[in-house]
Amino acid sequence: MSFKYHWEDFTPGWTHESPSRTLSADEIVAFAREHDPQRYHTDEAAAKASPFGGLIASGWHTATVAMRFMCDGYLTASSCIGSPGIDEIRFLRPVRPGDALRFRATVIDARPSTSKPDRGHVRWRWEVLNQAGEIVLSMIGVQFFLRRTPGR
Amino acid sequence: MSFKYHWEDFTPGWTHESPSRTLSADEIVAFAREHDPQRYHTDEAAAKASPFGGLIASGWHTATVAMRFMCDGYLTASSCIGSPGIDEIRFLRPVRPGDALRFRATVIDARPSTSKPDRGHVRWRWEVLNQAGEIVLSMIGVQFFLRRTPGR
Repeated sequence: MSFKYHWEDFTPGWTHESPSRTLSADEIVAFAREHDPQRYHTDEAAAKASPFGGLIASGWHTATVAMRFMCDGYLTASSCIGSPGIDEIRFLRPVRPGDALRFRATVIDARPSTSKPDRGHVRWRWEVLNQAGEIVLSMIGVQFFLRRTPGR
Repeated sequence: MSFKYHWEDFTPGWTHESPSRTLSADEIVAFAREHDPQRYHTDEAAAKASPFGGLIASGWHTATVAMRFMCDGYLTASSCIGSPGIDEIRFLRPVRPGDALRFRATVIDARPSTSKPDRGHVRWRWEVLNQAGEIVLSMIGVQFFLRRTPGR
């Protein structure tokens, strides 16, 4: 396969910003009914009576919005071969129906694999922002990418 | 509202184990097409040619399987009022079509909120296991729960 982006492209400070996407109440409820059916994600009235004062998106919903933006922005055009994990997720602010979300990715650091010369690690900061420019979710995660030019 | 579980119930070592759920290739592809359309999650042939040697579930899919088991097992019957975040997610083994997944939650520690006497924090280890008993995904996360008996 041929890829637009390889490990070598993701140098510290490399950044990507997505367009924005508005989450509707219907989308928030549909996601939550399937994956995270807590009352403040699925039931407008119960959500009003909860400490959140209204419907909010599941944190997993916001995280998958980030993942989809990442895929469409650069990841499916890259040599990514998976992830060992995520070092933190912070749910910083509620996401409410009508919020327009956008995604920002920034490379924190990158290093070649010490055991496999065909690949390298990249550590990322991934953020989801709302229409006010507030960060609603932040993550630090690691991904593996094949190298354009394998080392020895 | 009345809840079966409050903060006081989640003492260190409290544990819950779910029944199992088998992920089909169709479910894996449908989730990934919507949220994580990388080739080894959406395309059988491309997945065969990838380092994974076949279709694997998005890590987000496995994480939301955990979330749904958590909700059905105890969370929607609890006084949970959200989460500040997740301290780590580890994608330990690929999840393949036909794998039967189950979920295990264990309380690591719990403490009352120092600022809000009506609630407390609980730190959890959440694990997803396959039919061989192997842990395929592990997470450490924090949630807030209302107390049955608020402190002063």
